[in-house]
Amino acid sequence: MDDPEFWDQDQTKVTDRIEIKDRNIDQGSIVEFGPDEPLELDGGTVLAPYTLAYQTYGALNADKSNAVLVCHALTGDQHVANEHPITGKPGWWTTMVGPGRPIDTNIFYVICANIIGGCMGSTGPSSINPATGKVYGLDFPVITIKDMVRAQIRLLDKLEIPDLFCAIGGSMGGMQVLQLVASYGDRVYSAIPVAATARHSSQNIAFHEVGRQAVMADPDWHGGRYMDNGSNPRKGLAVARMAAHITYLSDDALHRKFGRALQDRDKLTFGFDADFQVESYLRHQGYRFVDRFDANSYLYITRAMDYFDLPADYEGSLAHAFRELKTRFCVVSFTSDWLYPTRESREIVQALNAVAANVSFVEIESDNGHDAFLLDEPEFFKTISGFINSTAKSRGILPAK
Amino acid sequence: MDDPEFWDQDQTKVTDRIEIKDRNIDQGSIVEFGPDEPLELDGGTVLAPYTLAYQTYGALNADKSNAVLVCHALTGDQHVANEHPITGKPGWWTTMVGPGRPIDTNIFYVICANIIGGCMGSTGPSSINPATGKVYGLDFPVITIKDMVRAQIRLLDKLEIPDLFCAIGGSMGGMQVLQLVASYGDRVYSAIPVAATARHSSQNIAFHEVGRQAVMADPDWHGGRYMDNGSNPRKGLAVARMAAHITYLSDDALHRKFGRALQDRDKLTFGFDADFQVESYLRHQGYRFVDRFDANSYLYITRAMDYFDLPADYEGSLAHAFRELKTRFCVVSFTSDWLYPTRESREIVQALNAVAANVSFVEIESDNGHDAFLLDEPEFFKTISGFINSTAKSRGILPAK
Repeated sequence: MDDPEFWDQDQTKVTDRIEIKDRNIDQGSIVEFGPDEPLELDGGTVLAPYTLAYQTYGALNADKSNAVLVCHALTGDQHVANEHPITGKPGWWTTMVGPGRPIDTNIFYVICANIIGGCMGSTGPSSINPATGKVYGLDFPVITIKDMVRAQIRLLDKLEIPDLFCAIGGSMGGMQVLQLVASYGDRVYSAIPVAATARHSSQNIAFHEVGRQAVMADPDWHGGRYMDNGSNPRKGLAVARMAAHITYLSDDALHRKFGRALQDRDKLTFGFDADFQVESYLRHQGYRFVDRFDANSYLYITRAMDYFDLPADYEGSLAHAFRELKTRFCVVSFTSDWLYPTRESREIVQALNAVAANVSFVEIESDNGHDAFLLDEPEFFKTISGFINSTAKSRGILPAK
Repeated sequence: MDDPEFWDQDQTKVTDRIEIKDRNIDQGSIVEFGPDEPLELDGGTVLAPYTLAYQTYGALNADKSNAVLVCHALTGDQHVANEHPITGKPGWWTTMVGPGRPIDTNIFYVICANIIGGCMGSTGPSSINPATGKVYGLDFPVITIKDMVRAQIRLLDKLEIPDLFCAIGGSMGGMQVLQLVASYGDRVYSAIPVAATARHSSQNIAFHEVGRQAVMADPDWHGGRYMDNGSNPRKGLAVARMAAHITYLSDDALHRKFGRALQDRDKLTFGFDADFQVESYLRHQGYRFVDRFDANSYLYITRAMDYFDLPADYEGSLAHAFRELKTRFCVVSFTSDWLYPTRESREIVQALNAVAANVSFVEIESDNGHDAFLLDEPEFFKTISGFINSTAKSRGILPAK
């Protein structure tokens, strides 16, 4: 997931490892919230001070009606459409965001912030805890999707953007979109949750728990204090990523891409090297990931996703979360996504229908699995373009005809 | 998979850990193959001497026509219908094998041997390498499903059983059944591959690779020489088991069993303990498993499964594997099994149909996922009973009417 370049690579060996010497690289724009501006957290504590790192694309128009907030997924970040400062690769959603793209930066002002708990410039477990002068580690508070969304709203306040033309995101990004609308619906003109869910399933909690156990089983994790120890639970995080990565694809996509093809050899070696391309590919995904991501952030963000249960905040009724909303919705799922299957998007749509909300729903035919939202899916782009443009007309951002 | 008691438990905490002090417990009957009786392996080497540990139930009849070979799955063993010597729990297929059961031990003579590469008495990576006097570890040769089947045939030869009334097995057991019929079809009167495949898919290779990486990432693995070091890669193997365990269930089964229910608490703790029952359950499965299973065996057996590609041995045509067979087949799959989905059983049936073999095919409606073959599935038992009994009549084991 969140690895837009993954199908692009022709080889699957671990050759392009990046050693991150310094996380204090240019992460784009920064907003600092001082000790007097605490972020209230669902866990009952507050976070202060804190920092949000974000990127913007395009220009805010005079009446501030054209702002689009992009919410990123588990391992994504704010680098939507610019070169990634660590990997040097294109942003993770250049197919969707840019001049002439479905979210056209010649028309819209696009904002994307690294989430609270992340590791790309916003405050997270790898940040310095002002109370101790040391890295937070597990002293960082457990956060929720709602906490992430509170931080996004604080950012909009700082940027003096009263409301959003659109909030869009896939996977965990879609969860943030749903939470944003539920909590701050009057500030969101339209919303596009893609390949998302209103409530994390037990199977998905189970996969996340495996990932966390893999990280915590690594002795280099040191109870979360690896930075103090000058170590890094690379192996554990790589295993977590490998397991997760399988869930982002579909059986068909794996079969189409790899089948049982061998890796740089004519026959089986009768050993434990990566005989099959799919093994080599997975190892590559795992070890490349640890070069750009913080292990504790992985624990915190998966936890936030597991905790996500929007209906539970509304007496068990998702429809109640959407009462009296004027927001226009476009809900999108993909046929082969088994991590956030179409039926979970359908539940969102049913809840919206129950309160007579303005909603369109499209299930895109694709064999790319959950990752489809990051890949070249023409029908998906057409759907988003169509919705965005007609909604922009109704808001007067684009001429009505 | 292969954990028949898993739905039985009411609690999911790790309370019943078993410390194995000595693997030289009573594993049932033993056959020793001497240095002059080498087992030829697909990898080009031989294994000699070697041991097979097995269990039998019921009695062989006078004309030796009532022998049933049960082939066990990845983490199964020979203790099909007797109390397990390590866990003290009932055998893993007491629902299927026993007096009055579908495979009725009042009628049939049932044999089940621990596979080569296993860790329950048959020779495997935890056995002593006669060449060095030390535990094999990674010096054990990589084996295949065909190697396992060769060993099974050697056992039948020792027991002076010319042919089998039936070979049956689920999952990797079903792969062995298919290989047995392909290699020694004239010695198998009937065959029941359950929840199996003729060729391991890339998704399944990927899941296995994650498990192997988890084991090998554990520093207590010591390059496979953990026994020499007095250590045990418990954490790595537990993570492997947790990841695998999710694939044995279905999303629906997890939802039905756990949903988002909390573990012994009223509300979220905002920490990394097991808040959800499904997390606690998975941890329990992981850590209970390592008490009864050898980590290197896990590597070797998953490798054997990944290498399984029966069509590849027959110029890419599975039908060629079954040419001129007189064996009667009953192929069984389960609707919610996403690890070995029905379409893979259907491919087996199509290949059998292509050579006009005698085959019946039943897809059992169940939401228990791959594990259904080990659970209480009345329709499944009825299917097996019906097939077994009618086939026993045609062979004269049971009276014709």
